Formats: sequence, C-alpha cells, structure tokens
Amino acid sequence: MPSSFDHAQKLLRQLPGLGFRSAERVALHLLVEHPEKLEPLLNALRDAAARLRRCTQCGNMTETADIAAPARCEICRDPTRRAEQLCLVETVTDLLAMERAGAYRGLYHVLHGKLSPLHQVGPEDLNLTTLAARLETGTITEVVLALSNDIEGEATCHYLQETYLAGRKLAVSRIGFGLPSGSGLTYADADTLRSALDARREYH
Amino acid sequence: MPSSFDHAQKLLRQLPGLGFRSAERVALHLLVEHPEKLEPLLNALRDAAARLRRCTQCGNMTETADIAAPARCEICRDPTRRAEQLCLVETVTDLLAMERAGAYRGLYHVLHGKLSPLHQVGPEDLNLTTLAARLETGTITEVVLALSNDIEGEATCHYLQETYLAGRKLAVSRIGFGLPSGSGLTYADADTLRSALDARREYH
Repeated sequence: MPSSFDHAQKLLRQLPGLGFRSAERVALHLLVEHPEKLEPLLNALRDAAARLRRCTQCGNMTETADIAAPARCEICRDPTRRAEQLCLVETVTDLLAMERAGAYRGLYHVLHGKLSPLHQVGPEDLNLTTLAARLETGTITEVVLALSNDIEGEATCHYLQETYLAGRKLAVSRIGFGLPSGSGLTYADADTLRSALDARREYH
Repeated sequence: MPSSFDHAQKLLRQLPGLGFRSAERVALHLLVEHPEKLEPLLNALRDAAARLRRCTQCGNMTETADIAAPARCEICRDPTRRAEQLCLVETVTDLLAMERAGAYRGLYHVLHGKLSPLHQVGPEDLNLTTLAARLETGTITEVVLALSNDIEGEATCHYLQETYLAGRKLAVSRIGFGLPSGSGLTYADADTLRSALDARREYH
C-alpha cells in the first residue's frame, strides 16, 4: 500500500462512522476512481470551515460574513421561537435531530459533550460559560434536559441540576426513555427495556 | 442550515457508503466539533492525490517520486509473483480484497469498471488498452476472471472472452459462486442460492 494513501486512509478512519473498509473505499474513490471529485470537496470543506462559527449564545453553528460581529445562529435570531424554553443538548447533531422532529419551538444550549471521567471530560470542557448568564436574565422559565440515556448523560444532568438549575424558578424536565417508535420488544436491548420499565406510566 | 455547511455535506454525501446522516456527522465532526482535524486531512488527501498514479501495466495504484518514469505498482515489480497468471478485477478495492485473502500469487489487471449499458459504460471506458499487449507477449498462460456475480459481471466476462481471450492458448476460469464462508442457507438471498445450485459440484 503506498504510504501517502495509507496516511490519508488513516485520517479518514478517524472520522465518525468510518471503519477500515469504508475509509479505504472513500480513499480509493477520491484518489483513484474519481480524482476529479477531490478538489471540489477539499474546497467546500475549507470554505465551510472559514465561514462557520459557533453561536456565541447557544453553541450551535452559524455562518457569518462579518467576522468581527458576535455570531448568533438562526434559531437564536428567530423571534418566533419561544425564548422562555431552553433545551440542553450534547451536540449540534442532536440539535439538528431535534429540529427535524419538529416538536420543539424553544431555544437551545449545546454543551458540546457530556461529563465523562473515563474520557477526561470535566465541566470546564463543556460549553457552560454562557449558560449561567442566560439563566440569570430570568427570561427562561422551562429547561428540557435532552441528554443521552446513559450513565454519562445521567451524570451530566445531575451536575447541571446541582450547579445551574436548582434554586431557580424553573420547570426542569428530562426527555422520556423507552421503546423507540415503531419498534417491538424483540428488537430492544436489555438497557432499553429497563429504561422503558422505569418510565412506565399509568394507563387508562 | 448554513449554506457553506450544506454544500460541504452534499459533496460528502456523494462519497461511497455515506448517506445523509453519516455525511452530516462527518461534516459536523470536521467543521464544528473537531476543526483541528480538518487541515491534516485535507493535506493528506491532497498529498496522496499528488503522489498516486495508475500503474501503466495493470491499472493498480502506485506511488511514484519520479513523475516522468512509467509508473509500475509493487505487485507488477515483485519478481516473486507468478507472471504467467493474470487475475482480472473490476476495481482496486477488489484487488485489495483479493490480496488480503492471500490466496493468489499472480499478477492483476484492473478494469476500473464493468460493462453496463444502463450506466453508459462501454468497452472504451474500461482499462483494456494494455490488456491485449500483455496477452500478446505470451508470458501469460492462465487468466482468472474475478468479476462480480451479477449480469454486468457476466456480460463483461463474455465480452472479454470473445474479444481478448478466445483463440489464445490460455486456461481461462471464472471464480466460484455460492454460499459465503461461515454462512447458512437461511441468510442467503435467492440469487445467491441460485448461484450456489448452479455451481454445485459432485461430492464423494
């Protein structure tokens, strides 16, 4: 295997969702089978990297022409969104998933991670500096914790509750857990079934 | 969605194996979550694209320092490979898969595609110019057709046989079809089972 190919493939393999075989397929596609596609892709990525900023309010991504101005994302700038609702998510991917569901019309705060002692992620690594200031304004009356259904998500919710949310006049909730829509018990793993049992609600 | 992000994601989605969601994940990873990884990746891809050539003999990829010299891949340059055996494959990916299996020690010829009237791929789009010359030398005595088990693979084999192979002193074979190793009938699709039945061999 040529070493420059090997190096490119190794870096591709570090991307989320790409394993050994898929990184090889992508590298061969761009370097051997369709080299004409490489330059447009590199340019698009470089161009996007130059334009995209983190929203200084919520941590979502946003595109800005004026680099000096404080960047605000489309959701934060949208006057029709409910400014009194704040949904806390781990990543921009999660925010986009929530937006696609179309069930939430408030604002977001993107943590860019979750607490994980195992991976050396502490509170100082999360996007928390502006969170206190946002809560301080008093506009927000409801907080929805839309974090993962795992130990790290649980720990992060606990930390947020103790450090930022408790003691304020806020309705705090965490999103529901259980069987995914359209799915039966057979295909659910044990943790999901435990979540679903814990989350059982009275039925009339 | 910022338009520069959207554009980068669209180009990523054209890569093999990347769908809408995985392209979004990769774009967010490189542009929002880990922007420090972008520049090394772009450089590695650009560097590899500058160094890699098609082997002028077989069509495999190869790295060359001297751009003026005719590029020969490692396999073609390897004196321990059996020069009398030639394995015809569709893509470099297929060649790599064959090499990983470690069961073949001859040379290759990469067609860079297969005949497909549906996708407007004709013989002039395949890497066939050097094939006749290679066969003409008389060194090759055995040809293994390692093309896909589908209609296009079949048509390509037929065309190669009629145009290049028939009438020469060559042992021509096509790789076997049937049940994949370690797999049972339950998980095989109907076409695989039909192949397996067609390829049945006497059993003692």
